[in-house]
Amino acid sequence: MKIVFFGKNAAAFHPGFEDLLDGPAEVRLLADSLEAPGEAEALAEADVVIGIRYGRDLPALSARLYQLPAAGYDGIDFRALPASCTICNAFGHEEAIAEYVMAALLSRHVPIADADTRLRKGDWFYWAGGPDGLRTELGSQSIGIIGHGHIGRTVAARALAFGMDVHVANRSAVDGAGYTGVYGLDALSEMLGKVDIVLNTLPLTAETHGLIGAEAFAAMQPNAIVMNVGRGAVVEEAALFTALSEKRIGGAIIDTWYVYPSADQPNPMPGNLPFDTLPNVVITPHMSGWTEGTVRRRVETCAENVNRLASGRPLLNHVGTGRG
Amino acid sequence: MKIVFFGKNAAAFHPGFEDLLDGPAEVRLLADSLEAPGEAEALAEADVVIGIRYGRDLPALSARLYQLPAAGYDGIDFRALPASCTICNAFGHEEAIAEYVMAALLSRHVPIADADTRLRKGDWFYWAGGPDGLRTELGSQSIGIIGHGHIGRTVAARALAFGMDVHVANRSAVDGAGYTGVYGLDALSEMLGKVDIVLNTLPLTAETHGLIGAEAFAAMQPNAIVMNVGRGAVVEEAALFTALSEKRIGGAIIDTWYVYPSADQPNPMPGNLPFDTLPNVVITPHMSGWTEGTVRRRVETCAENVNRLASGRPLLNHVGTGRG
Repeated sequence: MKIVFFGKNAAAFHPGFEDLLDGPAEVRLLADSLEAPGEAEALAEADVVIGIRYGRDLPALSARLYQLPAAGYDGIDFRALPASCTICNAFGHEEAIAEYVMAALLSRHVPIADADTRLRKGDWFYWAGGPDGLRTELGSQSIGIIGHGHIGRTVAARALAFGMDVHVANRSAVDGAGYTGVYGLDALSEMLGKVDIVLNTLPLTAETHGLIGAEAFAAMQPNAIVMNVGRGAVVEEAALFTALSEKRIGGAIIDTWYVYPSADQPNPMPGNLPFDTLPNVVITPHMSGWTEGTVRRRVETCAENVNRLASGRPLLNHVGTGRG
Repeated sequence: MKIVFFGKNAAAFHPGFEDLLDGPAEVRLLADSLEAPGEAEALAEADVVIGIRYGRDLPALSARLYQLPAAGYDGIDFRALPASCTICNAFGHEEAIAEYVMAALLSRHVPIADADTRLRKGDWFYWAGGPDGLRTELGSQSIGIIGHGHIGRTVAARALAFGMDVHVANRSAVDGAGYTGVYGLDALSEMLGKVDIVLNTLPLTAETHGLIGAEAFAAMQPNAIVMNVGRGAVVEEAALFTALSEKRIGGAIIDTWYVYPSADQPNPMPGNLPFDTLPNVVITPHMSGWTEGTVRRRVETCAENVNRLASGRPLLNHVGTGRG
C-alpha cells in the first residue's frame, strides 16, 4: 500500500500514524509545492492520499482513497477525482471546538485576568459584596446552535450542563431532549429572535453559503452575540460587518474567515472588510478545533480507514466519490 | 415583623426582598458601624437579622432568626447569640462558582485573548494545522474535588460534561455515579496523587483548618494546579507559598484568602506572604460566587425563610442555634 501525506497540513497527522497500521505500507510526505524530484509522481501513483486539497491543477490520481484529516472537504474538487476514488473526512475536533466556544463565552462573564491584574495592585474591585464587581452568569443565557452535527451536539451538551437554554436549528429532524426549542433551517429567523448567542457550526455547501445574511441579522436580538466556528462564508461578510459596525447586535466571536494566508500573502487580515478595526468582535485564526486531542483522534481515523481499505471493510466517514 | 439588613454586604440583598414577603414587615438597613441614631437599638430589637457578622462586640440580640445571605458562617459567634435564635445560611452561589472554576481552567487551554491580539496584527500563530498553536484539552485532564456539597456537585457536573475524569474526596459517603474515584477525607493524599487539578470547596471549620498542608502538597503531582474557592485557611498558607515558590506544583488559582480588606487597610495584599510576586499563581479577590444570579437566589432564600418564620413552618438551611 502506497500512502502519501500531501502538504504541510497533512504532515501534522503523520506522527504516530504508521504505528496504527495493520499491514505493510510505503509512506511518503509530500510538500504542497510538489517541487522535489518524484513528488508529483508519488502523488499520482499513491493508493491513499491524505490531504485537504485537490483540484485540476494537480496531477491526476489513481488513489482509491482520498482521506481528509479534517472535517471540511470544500477544498476538494470531486469532479477532478476518478470515480474509483472514495473521499472520506475525519472529525474528532468537536471536543476542542466546544472548549473554544465555552471558553470564549465564559470569558465574557468571568474577568479572571483583570481581577488578577487588579489584586496584584491591592485593588479588590471584584470582591463579593461590592456592587462594582457583580457579574452576570453564562447559565442565564440562551444559545441558538445552527447545525446539529458533531460540533453542535458537543457544544449543546456542555451548554446544558451550565444551565443554559439551548435552541437548535438543523436541516433534518433533531431529537430535542433537553432543548428549549428545535427549528428547521427554514425557521431560522424564528430561533434567532429568541436567543442571546447565535452559534454557526455549519460547513460550507451550496445550501449554507450566505445562510446568515442581512435577513438573519435583522431577526436577532439587539444584544445578540454571533459566533462562527463552521465556515466563514456561511455568514455573509458584508452583513456581519454592517451589523457589528452599526452596533445592531451585541458583538461577535469569529474563528472562521473570508481570507486565509497564502504563499503570496502569509499575514493577511482575515476579512475583505476591516474587522480588525472593530471593538465589538473577537477575532481568532481558525484555531477552535486545533488540539492535541483532535490530532490524535484524526490520526486514529486515518489509520483505521487505511486498515479498512486494505482488508476490504466499509470505510468510515464516506463523504463522496470522484466524478472525473 | 421587624427585619434589619446589617451592614454593607447584607444591603446588597435588599433590592427585591420586600416584594417577596407574604406579610407586613418593617425593614431597615443598618450600617456596619451602627453609628447613626437608633441603629444599635434597631439591631437589638429586630425579629430577623440579615447579615454575615456577629460577635460579643455587638449589641445583644432578641432575634429569632439570624439569616446569612451567604454560605460561610465563620463570621458568626454562635455563643454570643441567644438560644432562642436560629442561624440559617443561603447558597445559590454554586452555579457562579462553577462558572469561575471552568472559566479559569478553560483559559489555561484556549488562548482567546492572545489569538485576537495577534490576528489583529496579521499573525496567524494559532491557525489549525501549524505546530505552534496546537493546544491541550481541558477534557483530557482529571480534577480532584475536595468537598461534595453544593459547590463540589455543581463543578463536578460541568467537569463531567467536558469529559474530564472527576475524583471526589468528602467527609461523608458520596454517590459516585460518573466519578472516576471517591475517597474519604482520610484518604485525601491518595486522591491528590492521581489528579491534574485539585479544587478545594470546603468551608472553614476546626476540622478543615489547614487540611491541605505540607503533606498534601507533597502528595500532589509535579504539574498539579491547586484551586481554592472554599475558604483560604483550609489551605495552609506557608505550605501553599512554598509549593509555588519552589515550583513543587504546576501552579495555583486562588480566590479565597488569608488577608481581607478592613477599615484600617482597605487595599491589602491578600496574603501574609508575597503571593503577588509569584508568576505561577492567578490571584482573584474572593469573587467566584458574586453574580446577579447568586444575589437573586439568595434574596429568594432570605425572603422564603422570613415567610416560613412568620407562618411557623420549618426554616431552610438551618446551621445552628445560639448558645448564649
